[in-house]
Amino acid sequence: MSQFEPRNPEFRSRLRTYVSAQGYLSLLGVELLGVEPGFAEYRVPFRQDICQQDGFFHGGVIGGVAEGVMGAAAATLVAAGANVMGAEYKVNFVAPGRGAALIARGTVVKSGRQLIVCRADVVAAADDGSETLCAIAQGAMAVVEPRVP
Amino acid sequence: MSQFEPRNPEFRSRLRTYVSAQGYLSLLGVELLGVEPGFAEYRVPFRQDICQQDGFFHGGVIGGVAEGVMGAAAATLVAAGANVMGAEYKVNFVAPGRGAALIARGTVVKSGRQLIVCRADVVAAADDGSETLCAIAQGAMAVVEPRVP
Amino acid sequence: MSQFEPRNPEFRSRLRTYVSAQGYLSLLGVELLGVEPGFAEYRVPFRQDICQQDGFFHGGVIGGVAEGVMGAAAATLVAAGANVMGAEYKVNFVAPGRGAALIARGTVVKSGRQLIVCRADVVAAADDGSETLCAIAQGAMAVVEPRVP
Amino acid sequence: MSQFEPRNPEFRSRLRTYVSAQGYLSLLGVELLGVEPGFAEYRVPFRQDICQQDGFFHGGVIGGVAEGVMGAAAATLVAAGANVMGAEYKVNFVAPGRGAALIARGTVVKSGRQLIVCRADVVAAADDGSETLCAIAQGAMAVVEPRVP
Repeated sequence: MSQFEPRNPEFRSRLRTYVSAQGYLSLLGVELLGVEPGFAEYRVPFRQDICQQDGFFHGGVIGGVAEGVMGAAAATLVAAGANVMGAEYKVNFVAPGRGAALIARGTVVKSGRQLIVCRADVVAAADDGSETLCAIAQGAMAVVEPRVP
Repeated sequence: MSQFEPRNPEFRSRLRTYVSAQGYLSLLGVELLGVEPGFAEYRVPFRQDICQQDGFFHGGVIGGVAEGVMGAAAATLVAAGANVMGAEYKVNFVAPGRGAALIARGTVVKSGRQLIVCRADVVAAADDGSETLCAIAQGAMAVVEPRVP
Repeated sequence: MSQFEPRNPEFRSRLRTYVSAQGYLSLLGVELLGVEPGFAEYRVPFRQDICQQDGFFHGGVIGGVAEGVMGAAAATLVAAGANVMGAEYKVNFVAPGRGAALIARGTVVKSGRQLIVCRADVVAAADDGSETLCAIAQGAMAVVEPRVP
Repeated sequence: MSQFEPRNPEFRSRLRTYVSAQGYLSLLGVELLGVEPGFAEYRVPFRQDICQQDGFFHGGVIGGVAEGVMGAAAATLVAAGANVMGAEYKVNFVAPGRGAALIARGTVVKSGRQLIVCRADVVAAADDGSETLCAIAQGAMAVVEPRVP
């Protein structure tokens, strides 16, 4: 059970809209798997054109998906009408991204008024479902409140 | 003039091969502009499908290009036959990526035996060539020496 | 139970020596609490002269202890005679460091041949033992193998 | 000449107060050398008790001073009555901190309403004044506006 209380009861449908509105996520083939308050999970099926020279998932994809899923985790907690924007993030690569899909899991560590601090793990999943950790990330998402008219 | 002496005299052609071998860079439309010892420059023309929901360059693209161009800067300094692999990086976003193209400039700060530490700036360039800084990055690339047979 | 097998069976006494040999840790009053393969725990009792202007633990102390405890966690896994050296780290502050002591817990995420990637949590502990998370960290420690004579 | 216009004309004396109010900076022996809008410089004379086991400046000191001087650089730009608080930072070590003093230079890259993004370089200075880069840093400081009564 999550320790976070979502401020927007429609946070699940809100997050689906958030993901589908981002052209870049479609380009990468990102699928939204899990959504909980303070948590989101992305899946990226293998494709040759998101790889580096050795046929492994490109670091830019791994890092970008890590950052993206932290934004998604943060977006589950903001008020209706508010948005999140990446402020900063950091990635450590720990193994090559070799497998049938990347799975990225983002978790909110602290939900502040202006910044939401998150962590993410990115694993490479084999055809049999076994997972190898390939990157860990940490970052802060800025909360963008709706403009008062 | 660069403070670095390239170990591979063919570092320029080496870098062009390095860039063109990465499917993901082609997918993003990355062009290699500048190459010097310890320096590389990427350009990414605007396209709707590499944006986020507001029509600005996606953070995952900005961060990925920052990481990529640091890898390219590092790759100019390794021996023939050696390679570089992203070990870790960190990005701060400072303005939305709004413009006709992203330009990312990576610079080697310290070239060690095992790690090459780099910085990068990413700017959004308008049609008239004026530039707005949109992200800064810092990270370390691991040197992968060729296997001795 | 730890997922890591220590290469040095004397890793516990090795770590106590490692901590006591660092003048800076004594200056801060750092105590080594827990030691497991891939895990270390530091405690820093409150003192006015390690604070910032509001009487909370200084960010430099919080960040330094986070970095230090990741180094200690990494040091539990290296071979006898080898050492670790901080390569890089990143800290996010999530609450002021207000309390009777800081407790920092470092965990190895991936133990590579050249780099050991770690995470750390730093909490502020009150007199009654209750804990408030004040910072999270992530970083890589470089393995320094003993010189072959 | 700086690109930044200070909002507080008394920023120099403000910064001296900011530094002297932090017990931890006194403990380390930090001296404030330079102050310009968006820039600050710290100096830390060598002392055995701020070292690690080999008699070099401790990584926790190097990183803490890097973070501290970015905070100081940010503090030159906030309004009278406002404050800055470290939100996050990242450090890469590039050489051992061996010398007569550490000198840390912090520079504001972007001064936003809520976050001020900075970079820092830390060098080890020898007795003859020659400098060796030992760490680079990047981070964001949060602006804390004075409470409206």
